[in-house]
Amino acid sequence: MDDMNRMSAGSTGALPGSEKVYVAGELFDVRVPMRRIALSPTRGEGGALAGNEAVVVYDTSGPYTDPSHAVDLNKGLPRIREGWIEGRGDTLRLEAPSSAYGRARLEDASLDALRFEHVNRQPRVAAPGRRATQMHYARRGMVTPEMEFVAIRENQLIDRVREEFARERGEPFGARLPALVTPEFVRAEVAAGRAIIPANVNHPESEPMVIGRNFLVKVNANIGNSPVTSSIAAEVEKAVWAFRWGADTIMDLSTGRNIHETREWIIRNSPVPVGTVPLYQALEKVKGRVEDLSWEVYRDTLVEQAEQGVDYFTIHAGLRWHHVPLTARRLTGIVSRGGAIMAHWCVTHERESFLFTRFEEICEILARYDAGVSLGDGLRPGCIADANDEAQMAELKTLGELTRAAWRHDVQVMVEGPGHVPMQKIRENMEEELLHCDEAPFYTLGPLVTDIAPGYDHITSAIGGAMIAWHGTSMLCYVTRKEHLGLPDREDVKEGVVTFKLAAHAADLAKGHPTAYLRDWAMSKARFEFRWLDQFHLALDSETATRFHDQTLPAEGFKEAHFCSMCGEHFCSMRASEKLRQKMKGR
Amino acid sequence: MDDMNRMSAGSTGALPGSEKVYVAGELFDVRVPMRRIALSPTRGEGGALAGNEAVVVYDTSGPYTDPSHAVDLNKGLPRIREGWIEGRGDTLRLEAPSSAYGRARLEDASLDALRFEHVNRQPRVAAPGRRATQMHYARRGMVTPEMEFVAIRENQLIDRVREEFARERGEPFGARLPALVTPEFVRAEVAAGRAIIPANVNHPESEPMVIGRNFLVKVNANIGNSPVTSSIAAEVEKAVWAFRWGADTIMDLSTGRNIHETREWIIRNSPVPVGTVPLYQALEKVKGRVEDLSWEVYRDTLVEQAEQGVDYFTIHAGLRWHHVPLTARRLTGIVSRGGAIMAHWCVTHERESFLFTRFEEICEILARYDAGVSLGDGLRPGCIADANDEAQMAELKTLGELTRAAWRHDVQVMVEGPGHVPMQKIRENMEEELLHCDEAPFYTLGPLVTDIAPGYDHITSAIGGAMIAWHGTSMLCYVTRKEHLGLPDREDVKEGVVTFKLAAHAADLAKGHPTAYLRDWAMSKARFEFRWLDQFHLALDSETATRFHDQTLPAEGFKEAHFCSMCGEHFCSMRASEKLRQKMKGR
Repeated sequence: MDDMNRMSAGSTGALPGSEKVYVAGELFDVRVPMRRIALSPTRGEGGALAGNEAVVVYDTSGPYTDPSHAVDLNKGLPRIREGWIEGRGDTLRLEAPSSAYGRARLEDASLDALRFEHVNRQPRVAAPGRRATQMHYARRGMVTPEMEFVAIRENQLIDRVREEFARERGEPFGARLPALVTPEFVRAEVAAGRAIIPANVNHPESEPMVIGRNFLVKVNANIGNSPVTSSIAAEVEKAVWAFRWGADTIMDLSTGRNIHETREWIIRNSPVPVGTVPLYQALEKVKGRVEDLSWEVYRDTLVEQAEQGVDYFTIHAGLRWHHVPLTARRLTGIVSRGGAIMAHWCVTHERESFLFTRFEEICEILARYDAGVSLGDGLRPGCIADANDEAQMAELKTLGELTRAAWRHDVQVMVEGPGHVPMQKIRENMEEELLHCDEAPFYTLGPLVTDIAPGYDHITSAIGGAMIAWHGTSMLCYVTRKEHLGLPDREDVKEGVVTFKLAAHAADLAKGHPTAYLRDWAMSKARFEFRWLDQFHLALDSETATRFHDQTLPAEGFKEAHFCSMCGEHFCSMRASEKLRQKMKGR
Repeated sequence: MDDMNRMSAGSTGALPGSEKVYVAGELFDVRVPMRRIALSPTRGEGGALAGNEAVVVYDTSGPYTDPSHAVDLNKGLPRIREGWIEGRGDTLRLEAPSSAYGRARLEDASLDALRFEHVNRQPRVAAPGRRATQMHYARRGMVTPEMEFVAIRENQLIDRVREEFARERGEPFGARLPALVTPEFVRAEVAAGRAIIPANVNHPESEPMVIGRNFLVKVNANIGNSPVTSSIAAEVEKAVWAFRWGADTIMDLSTGRNIHETREWIIRNSPVPVGTVPLYQALEKVKGRVEDLSWEVYRDTLVEQAEQGVDYFTIHAGLRWHHVPLTARRLTGIVSRGGAIMAHWCVTHERESFLFTRFEEICEILARYDAGVSLGDGLRPGCIADANDEAQMAELKTLGELTRAAWRHDVQVMVEGPGHVPMQKIRENMEEELLHCDEAPFYTLGPLVTDIAPGYDHITSAIGGAMIAWHGTSMLCYVTRKEHLGLPDREDVKEGVVTFKLAAHAADLAKGHPTAYLRDWAMSKARFEFRWLDQFHLALDSETATRFHDQTLPAEGFKEAHFCSMCGEHFCSMRASEKLRQKMKGR
């Protein structure tokens, strides 16, 4: 086993110019982490200094950026939700994992060296006859610590700054954004199915977050090894890296060896919800033979992963047998892995997908752990030519039926969306989803607005992502520049996360979120006043901004210079504009 | 003087998998360059091969990618338009440059070592009483070789491929895209002012191109040294590099020493139109003292540059004295360099801008050379908070007046646009421009949809750029990742151009251009059929796509593999989808 704690330099520690602060709850004993960016004063006439209020921003990075926390991946993160979960008194501890696979892995001594030390041998599950989901509580009118946590988190202390920052008029396309998010508002949104708080009772380490159209747009980063590469330490490090740059959730899409153990390490060290696609592991269990897949193998995998603490599962239950022929004339067929597997299964066995026929049983399992379902779009288009076609729209309607089925079990639901869509067809995607899926949160992959730029698909998808998020998508799945070409490395992951953070932020701005507006406002003021360090600290990626600036003007003195190397001293318009103001004042 | 021809490896030579072809005109002796990408056959059942038609795409790279052309920057490019210009018989050669500055530079022996050898000592100008502009010809019903050239160029031989590629239904927002562009259509668009063909009679080396809402969206790349860096060879190389990756025009924004000579080298070696901001050089001539700027210095600069062959000038004539106070409450004041200079001038002299009062004289000069005017938006917003404000909109209305004034002189006009605009305000920008400027082509810088991502502003601006181009912008000015931080290097220039090409292409797709759809279609088919080399060749940046693929699967055999390292062999959905089709056929 590698030394888990030997992470690359820069993976942990405080973010530049930033301090970790915790905001206490009023209803519950919650401490909500935020990132406080202190700003330097404005230099006015005659050297007078005027202070600039610190800006507090959303922080996904977990304890890794808190200098008072001693990072030890071997121990996992503090279990901040454990007391809340126990306090509800509706769950119990199992004697042992209830999946056959989970037990077999635990008993296999050859895996001891790979195993996370403090593995949860007694998973938590809802007590008989109880439902332990946030939706269940919400529908019964109960506000949970998780709900208060996300309410405080969404507000980013905006109520403590001056009112002028709330002046931006957005176009929310029907989203209802409250001036201030209250725990009760969160409860009502979760109860209505318009938002979810992915929070498996077996993932007490997670810092609650909310996904919904009436909240900030979130970003998911995919990690996971592939058969071509593998290392548990590398994957955990990649996850920590993704949290640092802003991943609101991660999906572990590992398909290589030891994925059970890899997942355990990731979940125990993840402050954000973790999603998976259980079908991938089920397929590995039948040695890649699609025809051998069965409900029994799938069910055992679902239980295995739910008891590890997976917060949401992508389940391709909407792809039905009769949908498959609709893809026959497509240019690129079925491009969802899960979709391709299930289509193959249906055609081979000449029967309906077991994910569809067993969906009620799936929901019963999920409700026991509060694992959410992310309804996979197995028939999403794989290219511009196939966008918004009959197959995609037929599946979307089925996803709507399944959404309502899951809600009957108090299971929290997201709906996944495309993929590859030219700009003029993006809005239709969003509108159809809201219509057919009763406003369940939409979770899209991009969409890519053209296919001719491999190597730049983080950008083709950020364009579509920003647009669809503006129209109502709740979470964007990042796409890296390696998409369609290979596996992303550390730098690609960072760039992908930052790219999607900026797309999500652009959507928040366009919708009219005051917290989004405040950060732009503070950045622009710092820019106009040549407070270079403040600009770097307010940036989504301080390190890159600093590095680019310093390539031509490295000396420390230039951090206060009233120009940069782009235009040079005599051609700086901001400098000229500043002088002009002084001139006009003098008259 | 550096050896001009010692360019970095990869700057010239054929593009991967591509052949330079020339399409002959029917009306005139024009040879329109295009890039033909040959594709490999599809492998069917039993090893049967079915051919794939080559895809012909728009090509801005000039003779540099034609292996039969011997590149020699010391000689400049072939003067393909010279015969057409002479043939019209409405221009004459001057004895010597008519600008005082142009003559002084020619006579200064100390500059001999820097000078382009074949400098045009006898600039061409319209004969007395004549107007030599494409708009003038168009309005008189005359189709020029330039018009036929751009008609052929826009079509990319789409009429020679099967009709199915024209099936895409776009949303053009009022743009009228003909199924096939004819020379007469081009003439009518230029006559109406809805399109321009920047084509200075002193830049006969340029390959004509058209900028207008009813044509393909174009991309401009800014180059030019700054006071902080300088080298003529480096700037020319940067220009050649920008052509290679798709720059439809370049702007030389040099502000350093020897900018007259640098410009000469660039124009003589540029197959695309060259734009400048003459105010920058005028300011250098008065040693950076804004208050010393005068109409006389500006006028001489305009003539100097027009006689070198500059195809369009950014002129900030729309910023009027009474607009300046409108910027007083802005968060970031005036961020256009030209705007800041002129505002300062007006306030200092307490009078109207000479660019506004002398605009008729400016147009008289431009009409003599067919230099176009790009009406600068000196009051464009510099941040999200200032977008679409009173100052910006007041100037836009003045730009409309100036558009009509220029048209009275048969001068071709573009209108420049922002800048920094949140998504929900982008459409308004486009609609106001069309309304106030009578559909003159809009030429925008981004816009950036958020300010919090310095280091990623190629992306924040590509999001806004794709959207505004979809709504009707005719040309996008690229933004590199160094924007707001420093000067772009060679890799930044390439990335910036490719990023904006993909944004422009996404807009063309959304508007419904069949040529755009064809390239995506061919790419997607190649992807589904695992024709990796074809994918790389059809990509906007073949080199990057190939490099990313080869990082994990370098062996040549993987160029035909039915999977990539992203998902691995057993998890490739396309492979599974392909097998499924075979299975379904077998039933």
